[in-house]
Amino acid sequence: MRNSTVQLKYGRLKIGGGAPVAVQSMLNTPSGDVEAACAQINSLASLGCELVRVAVPDPAAARALRDIAGRSPLPVVADIHFDPCLAVLAAENGASGLRLNPGNIAGREKLRKVVDAAKAHRLPIRIGANSGSLPPELKSLPLPQALLAAASNQVKMLESLHFHDIKVSLKSSSVLATIAACRAWAQMSSYPLHLGVTEAGGILAGAVKSGLGIGTLLMEGLGDTLRISLTAPPQEEVKAAWHLLRACGLRRRGVEIISCPTCGRTHIDLPALAEAVERELALVSKPLTVAVMGCVVNGPGEAGHADVGIAGGAGKGVLFVKGQVVASMAENQLLEALIREVKKLENSLP
Amino acid sequence: MRNSTVQLKYGRLKIGGGAPVAVQSMLNTPSGDVEAACAQINSLASLGCELVRVAVPDPAAARALRDIAGRSPLPVVADIHFDPCLAVLAAENGASGLRLNPGNIAGREKLRKVVDAAKAHRLPIRIGANSGSLPPELKSLPLPQALLAAASNQVKMLESLHFHDIKVSLKSSSVLATIAACRAWAQMSSYPLHLGVTEAGGILAGAVKSGLGIGTLLMEGLGDTLRISLTAPPQEEVKAAWHLLRACGLRRRGVEIISCPTCGRTHIDLPALAEAVERELALVSKPLTVAVMGCVVNGPGEAGHADVGIAGGAGKGVLFVKGQVVASMAENQLLEALIREVKKLENSLP
Repeated sequence: MRNSTVQLKYGRLKIGGGAPVAVQSMLNTPSGDVEAACAQINSLASLGCELVRVAVPDPAAARALRDIAGRSPLPVVADIHFDPCLAVLAAENGASGLRLNPGNIAGREKLRKVVDAAKAHRLPIRIGANSGSLPPELKSLPLPQALLAAASNQVKMLESLHFHDIKVSLKSSSVLATIAACRAWAQMSSYPLHLGVTEAGGILAGAVKSGLGIGTLLMEGLGDTLRISLTAPPQEEVKAAWHLLRACGLRRRGVEIISCPTCGRTHIDLPALAEAVERELALVSKPLTVAVMGCVVNGPGEAGHADVGIAGGAGKGVLFVKGQVVASMAENQLLEALIREVKKLENSLP
Repeated sequence: MRNSTVQLKYGRLKIGGGAPVAVQSMLNTPSGDVEAACAQINSLASLGCELVRVAVPDPAAARALRDIAGRSPLPVVADIHFDPCLAVLAAENGASGLRLNPGNIAGREKLRKVVDAAKAHRLPIRIGANSGSLPPELKSLPLPQALLAAASNQVKMLESLHFHDIKVSLKSSSVLATIAACRAWAQMSSYPLHLGVTEAGGILAGAVKSGLGIGTLLMEGLGDTLRISLTAPPQEEVKAAWHLLRACGLRRRGVEIISCPTCGRTHIDLPALAEAVERELALVSKPLTVAVMGCVVNGPGEAGHADVGIAGGAGKGVLFVKGQVVASMAENQLLEALIREVKKLENSLP
C-alpha cells in the first residue's frame, strides 16, 4: 500500500497521488551547452528516465533552458541555488519545475520572488533538503531532525505565501539518517516525497547505499519519485533506478538479467558476456527476463523462469526459452543468437 | 537488536551468536589451480573477506584443498553438489566447512556420509537452498515456501542424524522472495543465517538488488553472515559487502568515499577522480571517511563530516580536513595530496 500523497504535474508527468513512482536523473553536461544537454536528455529518456534536472548556476544557463526544454521529450526541472532571479528566469524559459535548497535560498522576500514566478507559470517547487548544505542554525541538530526542520521551515514559508504545489526531499549521505528523516516526514505531510541518498559514491557504493536506503523506504510505501545519485554517468542512475523499482515489485521496464555469480565451475568469461548482453539490450523497454548462465548442464533449469537465456562453457553453449533448450551452438555464437531471440520476443509482445 | 542465533566456528571465525556479521565471497579461479586460488584468497582477505567458498566439482579439486586451505589466511568452505564423496574428501583435505544444496544431495544415506565426515573433522554444514535449484517435488510451491521447505527438510534430516552445526541460507534471484523466505525462517529457527540474493546480475543490478534484499534483512536484525553475489570479480563482492555493513551501521572498515553526483556545475572529471581515489585507498582497513567533491566553494562545507577531502574544478582545487581548507593546489596534484593526508591519518590511528 503506497503512502497517500497529493498529485503534482510536471508537464504531462504526474507525481504523487497514486501515480507510478517516477524515475529522475540530473544532467552533467556543461551548463549552457544546448546540444550536449539535448543529446543527454534523449539518451536518458531512451533508458526510461521520466524527469531531468538541470543545474542553473547563471543567467546564461537559465536562458539555454528555452531550447533545452523546448526540445526535450521529458519535463526539465531547474536546480536553483542562492539567487531567486535565476528561478524567475528559468520559469520564463520553459522549466517544468523548480528545485530549491533550503540551505541557500532563505528569507521570505527571496522566496516570494520564486513563488510568484512558479505561480505565474504553474510550476511545482521541490524543497530539497540536503545534509551537506543545511541552514547554519540547524547544523547542531542530529541529522534527521536538521533535515526535517530545514524542509519544514521552508515548506511553511511557501504555504504562508499561499503556495502548495510542493514536493519535498530529505537526503543525506548517511543512509540511516535519510531513512529516519523520510519516515518522520511522511508521518506529518502529504506532499509528494522525492527519495535519494546523496553523495553516495561511485557505482558500487552508490548502488548498495541507494538500494538499501531508497529501497527500504519504497518497500514501506513511501516515495513518489526517486533519483539514485551516483558519481558516474547519469545513464547509470536511470538503469539503477529501474533495477530498484523492479526488485521492489513496483514497476517493470526493460530487461532483467539473471546471471550466476562466477565460481570455479565456470568455464566462460561470464562477466564479459553478461555485460555485452546488458549493453546490447539496454534499449529494450518491454519487460523481459534474460538469463546468462555459466553452466550448460544446470543453467537452463536454474533459470527456467527466464523468458530467454543462454548457458555456456568450454567452447560450446545452448540457447533456451522458458527453461527448454532450443539450440546448441559454439560459444562465440551465443550472444548473437540471444539478441535475435530477444528481438523476436520483443516484437511479439503487445 | 540482532536476532539471536547459536554460534558456529569456521576455523577461528565465529559466525552467529552475537559475532559480527561476517563477509563471504566465492573463488572464481579454475578449480584445482592452487596458485590462482591462493592469490585470489589473499586479495580477498586484504579487502576484508572473512570466509571463502570454493567449488569442489571433482576429486582433484577436493585434493587441491589441502594446499589451498593450508596456505589460506581465511577459512575455506567446500561447495559440494551431487556427490557426497566429494564432501568426505574435502573434509579430509582441510576444508573449514561444507555447503550442500538441498536440490542435489537428497537422501538419508548420502547425507549420512557427509555428516560422518563433518563430525569427524568438526565442520559446520551450510544448507544452501537456492530458487534456481530446488528439489523437483517443491517446484510447484510459491518460491518462499519452496525455499523454506527445501532448507527445512534437509535440516530435519541432519538433526535426525544428530548433527546440529548447521547454517542455513535461502536465496532467490527475486529480492521479495528472498526477504519473505528469510523472515519466515528466522521466526522458526535459531541456526545462523547466511544472507544473499542469488543470480543478482552485474555490478549495478547486483549491488542494487543486494542492497535492498540483504540490507532489509540486516536492518531487521537478521543475518549472521552474507555474500553479495555479483557477476563480477569476487573482489567487488567483498567491497560491496563492506559498503552495505557500513551503511547499515553494523560494522566499519576501510574508506567510505563521499562524492557528489556530477552536475552541470562540475568542472572536473569527478567519476575518474573518485575512482582513482577508491583504487588508491582500497587497501586502507581503518575506518575513514574521504570526500571527493566537484565544487571548491561548497565542497569543503558539504563534506565537513569527512576526515579528509578534496574539492576541485576548473584547473585548481583544495585539500580539506574536517571541513577546513588546509591547502590549495593545481587540480593534477589533488589526488597525491589526498593520498598523503590519508596515509598520515591512518598511521596516527590506533
